[in-house]
Amino acid sequence: MHPDRFLFDADNCSIRRTLDIVGEKWTFLVLREAFYGVRRFADFHRAIGCARNILSARLKTLTDEGLLRRETYQEAGSRPRDEYRLTAKGIELFPALVALMQWGDHWTADPAGPPVELFHRDCGEPIKAEIHCAAGHGPLTARDVQGRPGPGARAVSA
Amino acid sequence: MHPDRFLFDADNCSIRRTLDIVGEKWTFLVLREAFYGVRRFADFHRAIGCARNILSARLKTLTDEGLLRRETYQEAGSRPRDEYRLTAKGIELFPALVALMQWGDHWTADPAGPPVELFHRDCGEPIKAEIHCAAGHGPLTARDVQGRPGPGARAVSA
Repeated sequence: MHPDRFLFDADNCSIRRTLDIVGEKWTFLVLREAFYGVRRFADFHRAIGCARNILSARLKTLTDEGLLRRETYQEAGSRPRDEYRLTAKGIELFPALVALMQWGDHWTADPAGPPVELFHRDCGEPIKAEIHCAAGHGPLTARDVQGRPGPGARAVSA
Repeated sequence: MHPDRFLFDADNCSIRRTLDIVGEKWTFLVLREAFYGVRRFADFHRAIGCARNILSARLKTLTDEGLLRRETYQEAGSRPRDEYRLTAKGIELFPALVALMQWGDHWTADPAGPPVELFHRDCGEPIKAEIHCAAGHGPLTARDVQGRPGPGARAVSA
């Protein structure tokens, strides 16, 4: 264990704060569908298959937190309906979703292989979520990476 | 929405299967501490601050699923105790944790800035979780990436 582990408060940890917003299975799955282009309640419901009240609650959280924005649309002869679209804040979670997916592809897939493959649209090569440094080294593993207190670190009072 | 969205079953989705194992806030936080080098129950408890029965359950899940392995150690004059160490399967979740952390650093950090900064051990430059393709293009955004059914895709019967 790093000798400084208990010198700093973990309450402002960015992983914890992220999980306070999206750290629940259905929330990630709603985001997954939004990345697949799903926008309407009925389509989210069909794709995810969770209870309607859970889906409503997750869409509300994601909208309240600014990862999705709600827009009203109306087709001729129908009543107005809501659509949910990813914001820049939501789109920025893409590397996290890809990283979770590739771990699952490796460790949990059926013998047949992964159900979905992701490619670079321009060149057709498969993509991966990887750790790279600003000097261009990578992909790096956990062993290549070192943490240190950042500007927002809060020392624990003795 | 992609026109093929509802042609395939999402039950074998790798994101869902990953979240079935680690998709709970405390589970991710246990892994966070394991990456910080924490190994003992008392240290996990001190670092995370969740209830002891929740911590026990999360350590059991992570051990049962093979992300942590339990080892017994004994210090002179003390009773034997368990240590929990990351396995290769656990270590491979590092990019997902880094991706969640950097999203939180951007969108949830205090005005002072992120509490922890991560660097490449060899060159000292900051690291990021990024999407790259096998041809070396990147970092890519969600818009640069296209999905298609993989070898394990299961068509939905009509």
